[in-house]
Amino acid sequence: MRPSGRNVSEMRPVSIETGFTKHAEGSCLIKIGDTHVLCTATIEDRVPPFIKGTGLGWVTAEYGMLPRATNTRMRREAASGKQGGRTVEIQRLIGRSLRAGVDRVALGERQITVDCDVLQADGGTRCASITGGWVALRLATNKLLSAKVITSDPLIDHVAAVSCGIYAGQPVLDLDYPEDSEAGVDGNFVMTGGGKMIETQMSAEGATYSRDQMNELIDLAEAGVAELVAKQAEAVS
Amino acid sequence: MRPSGRNVSEMRPVSIETGFTKHAEGSCLIKIGDTHVLCTATIEDRVPPFIKGTGLGWVTAEYGMLPRATNTRMRREAASGKQGGRTVEIQRLIGRSLRAGVDRVALGERQITVDCDVLQADGGTRCASITGGWVALRLATNKLLSAKVITSDPLIDHVAAVSCGIYAGQPVLDLDYPEDSEAGVDGNFVMTGGGKMIETQMSAEGATYSRDQMNELIDLAEAGVAELVAKQAEAVS
Amino acid sequence: MRPSGRNVSEMRPVSIETGFTKHAEGSCLIKIGDTHVLCTATIEDRVPPFIKGTGLGWVTAEYGMLPRATNTRMRREAASGKQGGRTVEIQRLIGRSLRAGVDRVALGERQITVDCDVLQADGGTRCASITGGWVALRLATNKLLSAKVITSDPLIDHVAAVSCGIYAGQPVLDLDYPEDSEAGVDGNFVMTGGGKMIETQMSAEGATYSRDQMNELIDLAEAGVAELVAKQAEAVS
Amino acid sequence: MRPSGRNVSEMRPVSIETGFTKHAEGSCLIKIGDTHVLCTATIEDRVPPFIKGTGLGWVTAEYGMLPRATNTRMRREAASGKQGGRTVEIQRLIGRSLRAGVDRVALGERQITVDCDVLQADGGTRCASITGGWVALRLATNKLLSAKVITSDPLIDHVAAVSCGIYAGQPVLDLDYPEDSEAGVDGNFVMTGGGKMIETQMSAEGATYSRDQMNELIDLAEAGVAELVAKQAEAVS
Amino acid sequence: MRPSGRNVSEMRPVSIETGFTKHAEGSCLIKIGDTHVLCTATIEDRVPPFIKGTGLGWVTAEYGMLPRATNTRMRREAASGKQGGRTVEIQRLIGRSLRAGVDRVALGERQITVDCDVLQADGGTRCASITGGWVALRLATNKLLSAKVITSDPLIDHVAAVSCGIYAGQPVLDLDYPEDSEAGVDGNFVMTGGGKMIETQMSAEGATYSRDQMNELIDLAEAGVAELVAKQAEAVS
Amino acid sequence: MRPSGRNVSEMRPVSIETGFTKHAEGSCLIKIGDTHVLCTATIEDRVPPFIKGTGLGWVTAEYGMLPRATNTRMRREAASGKQGGRTVEIQRLIGRSLRAGVDRVALGERQITVDCDVLQADGGTRCASITGGWVALRLATNKLLSAKVITSDPLIDHVAAVSCGIYAGQPVLDLDYPEDSEAGVDGNFVMTGGGKMIETQMSAEGATYSRDQMNELIDLAEAGVAELVAKQAEAVS
Repeated sequence: MRPSGRNVSEMRPVSIETGFTKHAEGSCLIKIGDTHVLCTATIEDRVPPFIKGTGLGWVTAEYGMLPRATNTRMRREAASGKQGGRTVEIQRLIGRSLRAGVDRVALGERQITVDCDVLQADGGTRCASITGGWVALRLATNKLLSAKVITSDPLIDHVAAVSCGIYAGQPVLDLDYPEDSEAGVDGNFVMTGGGKMIETQMSAEGATYSRDQMNELIDLAEAGVAELVAKQAEAVS
Repeated sequence: MRPSGRNVSEMRPVSIETGFTKHAEGSCLIKIGDTHVLCTATIEDRVPPFIKGTGLGWVTAEYGMLPRATNTRMRREAASGKQGGRTVEIQRLIGRSLRAGVDRVALGERQITVDCDVLQADGGTRCASITGGWVALRLATNKLLSAKVITSDPLIDHVAAVSCGIYAGQPVLDLDYPEDSEAGVDGNFVMTGGGKMIETQMSAEGATYSRDQMNELIDLAEAGVAELVAKQAEAVS
Repeated sequence: MRPSGRNVSEMRPVSIETGFTKHAEGSCLIKIGDTHVLCTATIEDRVPPFIKGTGLGWVTAEYGMLPRATNTRMRREAASGKQGGRTVEIQRLIGRSLRAGVDRVALGERQITVDCDVLQADGGTRCASITGGWVALRLATNKLLSAKVITSDPLIDHVAAVSCGIYAGQPVLDLDYPEDSEAGVDGNFVMTGGGKMIETQMSAEGATYSRDQMNELIDLAEAGVAELVAKQAEAVS
Repeated sequence: MRPSGRNVSEMRPVSIETGFTKHAEGSCLIKIGDTHVLCTATIEDRVPPFIKGTGLGWVTAEYGMLPRATNTRMRREAASGKQGGRTVEIQRLIGRSLRAGVDRVALGERQITVDCDVLQADGGTRCASITGGWVALRLATNKLLSAKVITSDPLIDHVAAVSCGIYAGQPVLDLDYPEDSEAGVDGNFVMTGGGKMIETQMSAEGATYSRDQMNELIDLAEAGVAELVAKQAEAVS
Repeated sequence: MRPSGRNVSEMRPVSIETGFTKHAEGSCLIKIGDTHVLCTATIEDRVPPFIKGTGLGWVTAEYGMLPRATNTRMRREAASGKQGGRTVEIQRLIGRSLRAGVDRVALGERQITVDCDVLQADGGTRCASITGGWVALRLATNKLLSAKVITSDPLIDHVAAVSCGIYAGQPVLDLDYPEDSEAGVDGNFVMTGGGKMIETQMSAEGATYSRDQMNELIDLAEAGVAELVAKQAEAVS
Repeated sequence: MRPSGRNVSEMRPVSIETGFTKHAEGSCLIKIGDTHVLCTATIEDRVPPFIKGTGLGWVTAEYGMLPRATNTRMRREAASGKQGGRTVEIQRLIGRSLRAGVDRVALGERQITVDCDVLQADGGTRCASITGGWVALRLATNKLLSAKVITSDPLIDHVAAVSCGIYAGQPVLDLDYPEDSEAGVDGNFVMTGGGKMIETQMSAEGATYSRDQMNELIDLAEAGVAELVAKQAEAVS
């Protein structure tokens, strides 16, 4: 029934290649099916003005898509002179999600910027960015720990995300692009390794949904996130 | 326990003054406690390029805050040369939410732009904007109906929104600014008059939440939205 | 003869509601007929770089129009990425006009920003902004005085403004939009409570005028400003 | 008494060199003392959207200052990414002023853009721009006439401008920069060759003025404009 | 003597992986040592306005660097709101270089956009972009040929580029970043497969060079380009 | 054979008028045939952040073209909100070229900005800017020397530039606009008074060139630069 032939609770193949670039303190190329996102984490000693002097750290994120990551070429945001609304929305979500898993006291007064750049898109880029972004963050904070710059681990738990939606009347896990563009209702679910929720975004484009449907999607998402967390653990071990 | 003395499931006083400005096809000033938003609906015969010729209508929204709507003056977005990430995120939410209640075939190939401008802010401006924006939309579509420009009602149901959050460990309804700035977990819930869900956005700034907590917040939200829908009905009758 | 039925030297009804918003140090909603402007005054301890360390204060203004303040919706300046030429011109005029009534030594090294946002427009928005802006400024400086932050009054005199023009061959006071869009010659006159002139801007779009005509308009303006000053006095008393 | 040693009603030396650049349909370098402005007029067959199909012509203006036209280097507006408020205000004034002397029916559906670029500034650049801009406009419209593209003269009369102000308590004509930066009250007066007024802009930076003072300045301005009109006539003959 | 231990006429290892992304009509990941650039070619039926209706095709290029492609994180150009001078200069060079190898009549009235995005930088990114960009262009034009959209090959010859410079007094081939940042004189040389020159850019930052030195660098470049052309041929065969 | 009737190695008439504007520390109007560029040099005590505290000076350049410097009016860059790619490329070239002739230790920690504004264009504006820019720089540094702000001359040698190209199959010196717009191959050659090379930029728009042709153009350029250096020497003596 699904265009890809997957069953409703089946994720696409997931791979995470760490150390994909050499300069960043942490990096990986995450592939969720045909969605490929390069995630890098950069540690800097400066923090945003609003926390200067508090001793707290900060984690933020930026998101971009290469112009031909998609089926038809999109205008380069640097050329059009600003980041679009979708980009802004996504990078704020990534930042908020990752911060939920961070002990900002343990991190100390420094900033980690996670850049998520989509090399190839096939649906679910924001969830792949969060999941891969956490791996980059883990690798970067490992460096701080092994260099004894910090002494207690600033990462409280894994953070991973998956999308679910109602496609052809059926709740399905991990929407790819053909499903995503058809689904009237879909959601992005960000959770911890321990199964707690961080962010829930369910929306209906020109439709509505019931609480029962919402619960079905969350059930699927819990299973999907557990799978992703296992892949993260494997990648950083 | 709440700074305002309200009990946990108590909304702030709500008032909706229709016809607040004379030029717009529909307008109201909605007050949710000290949050005051001016909502106007503008009908135009042109539609965005991507639906030209389809016979379908479009509803979109823009959101702004006057510089001194808040406790300290914020820089005017027109002066800083762009809309901030928060603004973009909110106006996309308002547009999506209102479209979920619209029969775009019945609307016909025309666009309604709902402008939500916050004159005074005390938390919950995006929810007030959706709730008041629907009233402006209702008044504008009424004009189309009574002028017989269209013959069947493009509004399927009421659309209203409320925020809930966990404040001081307790789920509470309709956060005001002092609560909102303290709550680790909060959500915005957009629903129809019939109790269906349109959009759920729950997030945890530096925290997590359980499915049980999520369900408690949704219970509160359902009651709050019902109250708002009654106020909308009264305002447009 | 006038579209509104007013006689040539008759102003539209004027009302000034102070304290329209709660956060600003001073605020009012001024209504000159169907022109409604929300004016707020914000006091900040910082001053622009060019007067830092001089002990002098600064008063500046910003002006905006809600997108549907006018008969057809105008593009939101924050969305188009810059303030238009008309906006820039008007806010510079408001700032200059208000500063002419301020003793910058008495104000001390602080800045007051007067925001004038047009909720509904029907001609004469810049004059209404100056007149209402002065009221917001008066209320804000009263706070500084009563809190004994400053000891001598920084406001030398009232500042108010009115437009006049030649409509259908006849000099008339306080142009509304139907008159303004037809008048070949019109002017904005900013004056003090004591009848001194602060700013005169008379222009002819595709026409010219004589010194006699200019004098007739100034006569009308003097009467109009006197009326506005009385309304200001009443509002702040 | 004046820094330059001029008497109160004495203009600076004026020279107008026509044909200063070869590409423009009309051009001149106008020198009012040490203020040097290069003015060019460009004729194009297209008109702005709002008059398309009306048969009417349009005259518009743009203004710029070279970065080191002034005593200290100013940031290049092209580099800072926008035209400042002062620039916008001035170019709108130049356009309005020149249009007041144009018969837009006689011009026919075409646009003339007058560019005024200040090569060296010493006060009064906007007045020099209007006066020199008219010369460029005259030369360009002469070309249209002699090429019989149009048959009746679109220029109704000369348009010229001069500034006056109260310097050291004394009304003086044609302020140079040292005077302009000291004068509490100054005005720009745009008039026709026949002595009619087109635009009056009198303002008081941190001061006020009486009607008597205003009249004294206008008397000076009338004499100054007459002198400029004679120079224009000589230059284009 | 060279930081990398290479001898003066030795290039870094070169690899070209074609088909790196699935959506683009042509794509490759080119690696010149630690410089990794993802090149994609997009075919569109529209052309820029200045050649519309001429029957000629167009090839253009855009260039970007991921924020953490470099040793320290650079600000994302989409976030800073414009492409920097270096970016603009480079993408114009890539476009000009590739066009020199294109028969625009054979291409027909269509546009190919070559996007070069640096995933990891270690000197020579513009040369790698030209060399890899040609491969993407070759693959995309092959598609046009095999689909019989065009019948004669629009690519006249290979286009490849290499940098050379004077490092520690010695002319060397293919500068890496440590060399590039020290070299007083360096050049970028774009050539065809047949050894003709397309673009020569030699510059001296705070230094000068003689014609003899220039000739030594060109000798090195000719050898380097020949090697790159062989790699291109292998990749697209 | 050349449109201007010049022989292949003949430059256009060159004139350099120093002191063209009064405010700048150094200025000239350089005319190379009908190409007229106003060059000014501004000395400031501040330096860019990346050399603060090093004791080294900096020389930078900005370039602009008046809208009607060209045959058809170009949009003003300040109005379009950014400097185009061509402008950015040229001003970076001017800055790099002039810095090659500067002893930054002798200059001391100060910045000289050379502004090159094209009043009239007929090909070769970037070369005229470099040649005239050096004169402005020489005059400004002379002031520093004669005021004993610095004691040793920061200018090592003359810097001048000329363009050459292959026009109608023939290498020619100093392309004017009609030649430039036809030439498939052209180059800009920046050299010192002593005949050393600073920057070579040869490119082929849709064509290629051989090393022999390159050498012929450099021969012509050497002669042309020698002539320009003599004119510079004369102008500043």
